[in-house]
Amino acid sequence: MIRRSLVCLLACVVAAMTLPAQSALMPQPAHVTPASGQLVVDAGFRVALTGYTEPRLTAAKDRFLATLSKQTGLIFAPDAPATATLTIKTTAASAPVQQIGEDESYHLAVTATGAEITAPNPLGALHGLQTFLQLVRTTPAGFAAPAVTIDDAPRFAWRGLMIDSGRHFQPIPVIERNIDGMEAVKLNVFHWHLSEDQGFRIESRTFPLLHQKGSNGLYYTQDEVKHVLSYARDRGIRVVPEFDMPCHTTAWFVGYPDLASGKGPYAIQTRWGVFDPGMDPTRESTFQFLDKFIGEMTALFPDAYFHVGGDECNGKEWDANPRIQAYIKDHNLKDNAGLQAYFTGRVQKLVTAHHKITVGWDEVLQPTTPRDVVIQSWRGPKGLADAARQGNRVLLSNGYYIDLNQPASEHYLVDPLGGDAATLTPEQQALVLGGEATMWSEFVTPEIIDSRIWPRTAAIAERFWSPASVRDVDSMYARLEPVSEKLEAVGLTHRSFTRPMLERMSTNPDALATLASAVQPPLGYQREELKEFGTASALNHLVDAISPESETVRLFAAAVARITAGSATPADWTHARTQLVEWRDCEGHLKSSFSSSDLTAELAPVANDLTVVATIGLQALDDLKNQRTPSPAIAQASLGFLKEAEKPKAVLRNMAVPAVVELVQASLKH
Amino acid sequence: MIRRSLVCLLACVVAAMTLPAQSALMPQPAHVTPASGQLVVDAGFRVALTGYTEPRLTAAKDRFLATLSKQTGLIFAPDAPATATLTIKTTAASAPVQQIGEDESYHLAVTATGAEITAPNPLGALHGLQTFLQLVRTTPAGFAAPAVTIDDAPRFAWRGLMIDSGRHFQPIPVIERNIDGMEAVKLNVFHWHLSEDQGFRIESRTFPLLHQKGSNGLYYTQDEVKHVLSYARDRGIRVVPEFDMPCHTTAWFVGYPDLASGKGPYAIQTRWGVFDPGMDPTRESTFQFLDKFIGEMTALFPDAYFHVGGDECNGKEWDANPRIQAYIKDHNLKDNAGLQAYFTGRVQKLVTAHHKITVGWDEVLQPTTPRDVVIQSWRGPKGLADAARQGNRVLLSNGYYIDLNQPASEHYLVDPLGGDAATLTPEQQALVLGGEATMWSEFVTPEIIDSRIWPRTAAIAERFWSPASVRDVDSMYARLEPVSEKLEAVGLTHRSFTRPMLERMSTNPDALATLASAVQPPLGYQREELKEFGTASALNHLVDAISPESETVRLFAAAVARITAGSATPADWTHARTQLVEWRDCEGHLKSSFSSSDLTAELAPVANDLTVVATIGLQALDDLKNQRTPSPAIAQASLGFLKEAEKPKAVLRNMAVPAVVELVQASLKH
Repeated sequence: MIRRSLVCLLACVVAAMTLPAQSALMPQPAHVTPASGQLVVDAGFRVALTGYTEPRLTAAKDRFLATLSKQTGLIFAPDAPATATLTIKTTAASAPVQQIGEDESYHLAVTATGAEITAPNPLGALHGLQTFLQLVRTTPAGFAAPAVTIDDAPRFAWRGLMIDSGRHFQPIPVIERNIDGMEAVKLNVFHWHLSEDQGFRIESRTFPLLHQKGSNGLYYTQDEVKHVLSYARDRGIRVVPEFDMPCHTTAWFVGYPDLASGKGPYAIQTRWGVFDPGMDPTRESTFQFLDKFIGEMTALFPDAYFHVGGDECNGKEWDANPRIQAYIKDHNLKDNAGLQAYFTGRVQKLVTAHHKITVGWDEVLQPTTPRDVVIQSWRGPKGLADAARQGNRVLLSNGYYIDLNQPASEHYLVDPLGGDAATLTPEQQALVLGGEATMWSEFVTPEIIDSRIWPRTAAIAERFWSPASVRDVDSMYARLEPVSEKLEAVGLTHRSFTRPMLERMSTNPDALATLASAVQPPLGYQREELKEFGTASALNHLVDAISPESETVRLFAAAVARITAGSATPADWTHARTQLVEWRDCEGHLKSSFSSSDLTAELAPVANDLTVVATIGLQALDDLKNQRTPSPAIAQASLGFLKEAEKPKAVLRNMAVPAVVELVQASLKH
Repeated sequence: MIRRSLVCLLACVVAAMTLPAQSALMPQPAHVTPASGQLVVDAGFRVALTGYTEPRLTAAKDRFLATLSKQTGLIFAPDAPATATLTIKTTAASAPVQQIGEDESYHLAVTATGAEITAPNPLGALHGLQTFLQLVRTTPAGFAAPAVTIDDAPRFAWRGLMIDSGRHFQPIPVIERNIDGMEAVKLNVFHWHLSEDQGFRIESRTFPLLHQKGSNGLYYTQDEVKHVLSYARDRGIRVVPEFDMPCHTTAWFVGYPDLASGKGPYAIQTRWGVFDPGMDPTRESTFQFLDKFIGEMTALFPDAYFHVGGDECNGKEWDANPRIQAYIKDHNLKDNAGLQAYFTGRVQKLVTAHHKITVGWDEVLQPTTPRDVVIQSWRGPKGLADAARQGNRVLLSNGYYIDLNQPASEHYLVDPLGGDAATLTPEQQALVLGGEATMWSEFVTPEIIDSRIWPRTAAIAERFWSPASVRDVDSMYARLEPVSEKLEAVGLTHRSFTRPMLERMSTNPDALATLASAVQPPLGYQREELKEFGTASALNHLVDAISPESETVRLFAAAVARITAGSATPADWTHARTQLVEWRDCEGHLKSSFSSSDLTAELAPVANDLTVVATIGLQALDDLKNQRTPSPAIAQASLGFLKEAEKPKAVLRNMAVPAVVELVQASLKH
């Protein structure tokens, strides 16, 4: 039985590849059966709801038509349909508060004469609508969706995106448009990181000094939060709030210093990093405060889960406080880790008393941790497997840190059931609820944040939704680009943000765009290592204005790979040459303008490197074309230069280098 | 005295030209005195309000900082300033309802150590803040405003933009961002065209069938209108509503057919054009209805002026109604024009009874029209002069029809006191209040509309604000480009709208952008003449995705002009050649993709033309460079082809043609 469905899965996925290229689906549905023909989408397109209905479905229908209109430029008359083009049949209501593991399946059938979405509840209908939007593309007959039958349901029940509103506050419109992006790729949990050393970002009516003194005025009112909750529910998305404790809590202490383990007074942190302040677990008043606070917040957020953080306690305030050290000794807590375990245990009981389930980062896991606590693994795959072996439910975030500027392919191949988790028993694997992409906000303002989340998070969303067998990187990239285009139609700015930033940097934004196409931001935490940053640092340099992954570079590298493998088409040769010429020449266009702005002065060596790298690449391309072996001395000098050029300048990585190295090495083989 | 101030004006304007190029001011202030040095704008930049203050000024300060942050990427801490970088000194309040002719002057002084705006009231302070935003640009020392002293006040008191929400409904965010754009270029009247044959766009609580049956559900609620009124007042902008009558009123009649002169029933018009339905001026019930309706709307809109339209009555319903013809005869009204004059007279009395001043289009002017009616001239400059001679106050819109796709230079040189108005006496000229750019919405959806308004309306705003002597077209264009960039920072989408539209049209948006850079939409009403359009027509073709004026073409033509005049630099030659090569080659990149979409299939002949035009241009450029005279036969063939290529294809004008014709003709002179 298992074998048979596996065969079916593979066959269906292969068949899906035959959908028209622009009808890119991401996440790839579980079962796709293409048919012949297509459904034309024109101004007469109409949608009807049948069966069970509710305001959320009507709103979803209107939003669907608005997005379809943005995607196509078609204007759909708002009048009632005579005969619907797309019919949505929903059986019954979903839970009043969205539950983990609710049925999210749907069936979508498109024929030349109409389309139908059937779903057991509104959640599936919402997903089906997003799939239909991805199917629509331009054709010689106008916009159309290809005929197809889709049966779809998610692999994991918890498919999240975390946004850190603490370090850089992200206004409500940013949250809204990212929730729209989540809906488009069928993510279903918005994990809202609401407190940090640099800011306490939500209004507390019980303890108003939290937001009044801890946020510099940048916080969400409870009315705004309620709006986001309803906005997310409308889109089939749960909202799990996180209040990180006992550390990452400096901003709490500005208004309530008695919560802290140190002497105070405290000020909001203005730099990035791990700081010393931590809550005092030895005083009952701390838990009395937290009881009231958790009571207020659990009443506001309807979700069954409540995240209490728990990461990165350096324990320095505890070490420095003799009373706390005495407490550890008196209560046989052993060390600071023991003290934190005690704290977490107390907090977990408070959360339970308020009828919620606790979620925490890796560090909260202790042998004594109750089985119902969900562990979010960020430090490594081992933490996830350990927690599952201990019987706790788990979420994977390690490997999905989208703030670290890795390529989509790397995130894509990380599987919640891969690595150490592959060794779990089926029962233990069933404890793996899914995962979350995490957008930590040290280096993202509202202007930049979309580009750090999208489109790469669409690839992660596919990992969480699609069958485990869907892991072809080339197919993913081929679909990622059209999906990325459509994500701008729902309001995200991950593509359009670049141009205005280049325009304010330079009087020659076109040439700067060429330079930008060759570079990427540094990986991991390199940027912080290069220079101290904080809340007042301007993020307006070229490194901030580019995507973590350059599509230009990816396509160039692919053409080069085919050239060196001997499988290139004439178009590949032309592509590689044209790109190298463009890169080689951009320094000439930019040279005179670099010094006119402090934002571009640092780019002179970057552009100079690019000229040399591209010239080397062109020489190697010529050698390869003419089957001419270069002088070994010159090749050695070139490779030496390329090695140096790989090092970041102006915190930018020159991504033309690896493919040019490949060209030079290939030319040496003749 | 007049002579002396004129000399000063000219001197100051010349001096203004020495401001750094990126500190482009538009409208050009009345008096600009540049100094040496500059004020650096960094994260420590602070603004303080002194003297008279009110919530509007605090909001303006916050909005100013938000825009400055968007322009620069700098993050300004929200805490209270220790010492302010920019101080705003306001003397007293402005009128509770903004009045025409209120003092809008301000004084702005920038030195290396600080800046100060002084203004008699908040209106001037608002304008001063916008001027400061335009001064800020990138420098080697970071963002900075050049040292300067500015004394500024507008030339005309009524500086308007009309938006037609009737034909294509424009949602509130569109209205908001265009009001932001108006503030940026110191326009002060938003003329809101709220009813049309194709839609009645505002909630009426007195006559709810107006919006319920006349809008297809696309209308503004009164709460939304109130929000816009307050939004506009915050930005120093009056809102004048227009309810066009007795014609352009089909949408009224769907709910209230008794208002009409025909038999009905009526349906909302779905095509563009001039339609037959008109109100029945012979029934007292019509005026009883209008009395109540005008009462409701004048209570909602606080402005002293109320626009009743009055344009384009074809009189066909009146002709067809024997009772109406009898009424004309019985009351000695002579003809339909007489009937309309009678109607307008009655409506004007109702408006007066509700304590407002009537504004109407040209057609409402009759010998008997009361002196306090303001005439908005759209049919020609003669109408304006005639009305002023008759003693009525006037507004010029003829020449500012931004829906007709004319270049900015043409609008720019139209002066409310030019043409026929130049022959008026000083007393009559004083009746010219100013003018309005008019955005009729046959061919603009929310996606497109910004590009039809901006940046050209900034040039019109300069005409209304700056001294009459400011009319150097080259200077205007040199400033228009940086101002256009900054207008996107306030939220307008006139530049960014193109890319997503090209992406949905073609799999090769880069090459399509090259083709797009060579073409412009047709002038005037040509598009309607080529094909029938209406409310359901999709505006998603290339003609919709481009700006009315191509900056690429303008720069190319300027280089060509210098080449043929013998004053070109080497950079001009390179520029012209590079551009022509790019245009010549784009067909090759696009060819294979044209047929894959019905949106691009029509572009094959456009691209083919461009290839031939560019090839001819390159040949002529070579001939000129080498001082070689071409074969007369070939030149003749080329010119013949160019003449044909000037005709629109796919409703696109090939704008490369005129400059290439210039090149060929110059080459023949050797």
